[in-house]
Amino acid sequence: MRHLLSTRDMPKETILGLLDRADQHKKTPPKPNLQGKILATCFFEPSTRTRLSFETAMKRLGGDVIGFHAADHTSSKKGESLQDTIRIMAQYADAIAIRHPLEGSAALAAEVSDKPVINCGDGSNQHPTQTLLDLYTIRESQGRLEGLQIALVGDLKHGRTVHSLLHTFNHFKPRIYLIAPPGLELPKQQLDELKAHGIMFSCHQTLDSIVPKLDIIYCTRIQHERFNDKIEHAELVKPYRITPELLEPAKPNLRILHPLPRLNEIDPAVDKLPHAYYFEQSQNGLYVRQAILNTVLT
Amino acid sequence: MRHLLSTRDMPKETILGLLDRADQHKKTPPKPNLQGKILATCFFEPSTRTRLSFETAMKRLGGDVIGFHAADHTSSKKGESLQDTIRIMAQYADAIAIRHPLEGSAALAAEVSDKPVINCGDGSNQHPTQTLLDLYTIRESQGRLEGLQIALVGDLKHGRTVHSLLHTFNHFKPRIYLIAPPGLELPKQQLDELKAHGIMFSCHQTLDSIVPKLDIIYCTRIQHERFNDKIEHAELVKPYRITPELLEPAKPNLRILHPLPRLNEIDPAVDKLPHAYYFEQSQNGLYVRQAILNTVLT
Amino acid sequence: MRHLLSTRDMPKETILGLLDRADQHKKTPPKPNLQGKILATCFFEPSTRTRLSFETAMKRLGGDVIGFHAADHTSSKKGESLQDTIRIMAQYADAIAIRHPLEGSAALAAEVSDKPVINCGDGSNQHPTQTLLDLYTIRESQGRLEGLQIALVGDLKHGRTVHSLLHTFNHFKPRIYLIAPPGLELPKQQLDELKAHGIMFSCHQTLDSIVPKLDIIYCTRIQHERFNDKIEHAELVKPYRITPELLEPAKPNLRILHPLPRLNEIDPAVDKLPHAYYFEQSQNGLYVRQAILNTVLT
Repeated sequence: MRHLLSTRDMPKETILGLLDRADQHKKTPPKPNLQGKILATCFFEPSTRTRLSFETAMKRLGGDVIGFHAADHTSSKKGESLQDTIRIMAQYADAIAIRHPLEGSAALAAEVSDKPVINCGDGSNQHPTQTLLDLYTIRESQGRLEGLQIALVGDLKHGRTVHSLLHTFNHFKPRIYLIAPPGLELPKQQLDELKAHGIMFSCHQTLDSIVPKLDIIYCTRIQHERFNDKIEHAELVKPYRITPELLEPAKPNLRILHPLPRLNEIDPAVDKLPHAYYFEQSQNGLYVRQAILNTVLT
Repeated sequence: MRHLLSTRDMPKETILGLLDRADQHKKTPPKPNLQGKILATCFFEPSTRTRLSFETAMKRLGGDVIGFHAADHTSSKKGESLQDTIRIMAQYADAIAIRHPLEGSAALAAEVSDKPVINCGDGSNQHPTQTLLDLYTIRESQGRLEGLQIALVGDLKHGRTVHSLLHTFNHFKPRIYLIAPPGLELPKQQLDELKAHGIMFSCHQTLDSIVPKLDIIYCTRIQHERFNDKIEHAELVKPYRITPELLEPAKPNLRILHPLPRLNEIDPAVDKLPHAYYFEQSQNGLYVRQAILNTVLT
Repeated sequence: MRHLLSTRDMPKETILGLLDRADQHKKTPPKPNLQGKILATCFFEPSTRTRLSFETAMKRLGGDVIGFHAADHTSSKKGESLQDTIRIMAQYADAIAIRHPLEGSAALAAEVSDKPVINCGDGSNQHPTQTLLDLYTIRESQGRLEGLQIALVGDLKHGRTVHSLLHTFNHFKPRIYLIAPPGLELPKQQLDELKAHGIMFSCHQTLDSIVPKLDIIYCTRIQHERFNDKIEHAELVKPYRITPELLEPAKPNLRILHPLPRLNEIDPAVDKLPHAYYFEQSQNGLYVRQAILNTVLT
C-alpha cells in the first residue's frame, strides 16, 4: 500500500491485513520503529480529534510531526494551489496526512506527492481511517465482521463516516437497518449501491422495534448547524436518542458505536452500560492509525 | 499526588516537597526520565506562556506533547462536552494540562480522566502551578517562606494569581500589605479568610510609606480591557507603578515578583536593579513544572 | 556567528561557509547532533512554509521545537512588549527563530536574548535565511556565483526576498536585468545601491528579448491584495508570466527560481521543463536551515 486514499475499492484482504496489524499494536507496547521519520499533518479543515490521534500514533512509534491546521495555514490564503502546498510538504516530511474540504483532494495530493498520502477526510467523500477503526471495533466487539445485524442511526444524508463505512460492507454482507429523521435519510445513490451489492436493508423512522435483533448500533451526530433553531433540532433528535430504556430488550452483546464528537444522540446514562463502546472505538483509532503509519512508512 | 487541581487545601509538606523537587531540577541537568510519555495540553482559553512552559518542561525531560488551544479546538465548537473531550485526550496522553475559562472545570476533568490532570487555570478559581512557582521564587530569594513582609500590588479583585497565592499563605503567616486602585481591592471574602487564618494585613492606597519594610512586592497586571479608555487606565495605574525612585528606601534584599505579562506596572529601568526578580520567577516556572510532571508521571 | 539577523553586511566568507555547510547537510544523512536542544519559533506574523522548514530542519537534527504563531500568541494581545516575550522565550529555548511585521524587530530581539536569534523576516527589511537558500540554489545550479546573468521579475517594489538578495550581489557582481510591471519597479534607493557597488543592471518592461542571455530568472509573487480587482491583476501579470514559449530561446542551463508560494507567475507547464528549479530551491531551504541551526547551536 503506497497511499491510503479510500477504503471504497480496497480489497478485503487489505482491510483484514490492516485490522490484524492494528491488533498487534493493541496487544504489544509500541516499538519506536518510526524513529527519525516525520509525518506532516495538513489540515485545511480543522479536526482536533483526527489530527491528535495521528500525532499520538506517530509519537508513540518514535516518530515526530510537523503540520498546520486551517487557522494558521497562510500559503493557501496567499493563493497557493493544493498541489504546490503538497509538493513542499512532501519535501519536508516522510508521509502526509491530509484533511481538505473538497472531494478528491487527497487523490490530487497523492498525484504530486512522492511520499505516502493518508486521506483524513476529503469533503463528503471518504474518511478511510475512520472506516478502518469502525471495522476494527465491530470485529473486536463481535468476534467477526460477516453477517451482523447493524443499525445506522442519525444523519444518514450528510454523514461521511456512514457512507464510507457502507462501501466496505460489500465484503461482509451485514443486514442493515437505516434509521434517519425525515429529510436526513440515506441518499438514493447509496441505497442503489446497497441493492446492487445484494446487501439486505430496510428503512425505519424509529429504533424501538428493531433493537432486539441488533448486534451494532452505529450512531452519527445530527449537526445543529443544519437547523434554524436549537428547539427544532432538539425536537427532531429526541426520537433517535439512545437511552437505557431503549436498550432494555437488547442482546447482551449489542454494542453502540459513534464516531464522536456526540451531542445528545446518546444519553450519558448509557455510558455505564456494557453496550457503550464508543470510547473503546475512539481508543482503537490509535492502534489502527499506528498500523497505517507503519504500513506506509516501513 | 494523583492530580494537581488546587493549592488551596494542599498540605504544607506537599508544597514544600514540590519546591524541593523543583530545586533539584534547577540544580542538575534534566534527565530524560519521561521518555515515551506524552503530555496533552488542552487549552480551551489561550495562554502562550503557561502552555510553552509546560511543553518545554516536558520536552526537557525527554517526553513529548500533543494538544490544542482555543483557536483550533473544534470538537468543543461542534458541541462536545468537556468530559468527552477529556476522556478522549486521556486515551491519547499520559497526563493532561488543562486551562479552561470555567471555575471547577479542572476538577470535572479529573473526575472522568484516568490520567493525571494538571490545572493550568480554571477561570478565576485556581492556578496552582503559578502559585507553586511564586512560592518557590519567594523562598529562593529570601531563604525562607515564614514571617515575610509581602506587598500585593495592582488588581487584587480579579487577579487569580493573587487569590491562589493568598490561600497558601495560611501555612507561612506573612505580614501582608494590600495595595490596590479604588474599585480593584481584594474582595471581602478573601479579607475574611485572611482574618480567619490569623494573617496580619493592612490595606493601602499607595506603596511609598511601606517600601522600607518589605521583603517581597508581588505586582499584578491591571488589564486595560477593564477600562473605558487608555487614558483613564494610564492615570489610574500611575501611582501603582514600580519605579527606581520608589525603591530607593528599600531593603537590599527586597525582590519584586510579577506573574507576567506586564504592561507598564513596572518601569523598565527597574529591570536592571537587583530588586527585579520577575524574570528569575518566570524561569523558575520551568523547574517547578518539571517537578510537577515528574511527580504525576513517575 | 552568534545571531543571524541579516545577510546585508555579511562577509563573503561567512556566506560561502554557510553554503558549504548546507552542502554537507544535503550530501549526508542528518546526524542527531542537536539532541536535547529546543528551538522556539516566534511567528508574530504567520508563515507556514518558513516555520515548517525550520521545524523540520530542527527535528531532522534530533532537536525539538516549541513556539507560537500569530493566531495563538496571546501575550502580545495582552500588551506585552516584544522584549519581554523574547526574554521569556530565551529562558525556554536554546535558540529563537523570529518573524515579526516590524523592521528591526529581530535586531531588537537579539539585544535582549542571551540565546541565538534567527531572523525569519522582519517586515520589508531582511529575510536572511531565504537569501542564503537562494544563493545556495544559484550556486548549485550554475556551479558558481560570480558573473552570472540574472533577471529579477515581478513585484520588485515590495519583494523583501529580492531586496535581501540584491544586497548580497555586491560580493558576486552579476549582470542584473530588472523586469517589473509599471508601479512595481525597484525603488530608487535600491537602484542607487546597485550603482554604488558597480553592479551592471538595466530595467525592462518585458522578458522576451533578454531570455537568451540569462542564467537565472528569479520570479516573485505579484500579490493580488495590492490590486482593486482580480481582473486588473490578471491583466497586469500576464506579460510577466513564465511560459514554455517564452523559454524556447533559453540557454539549456537557464534555471527559474521563485521563493514560493506562487500564484500564476509561472505556467504549470513549465514545471516539467529542465529550467524549473523552484522546488529544488524550496528543498534546499531545509539544508540551509540545518546549516544555520548547527552553526548557531553548536
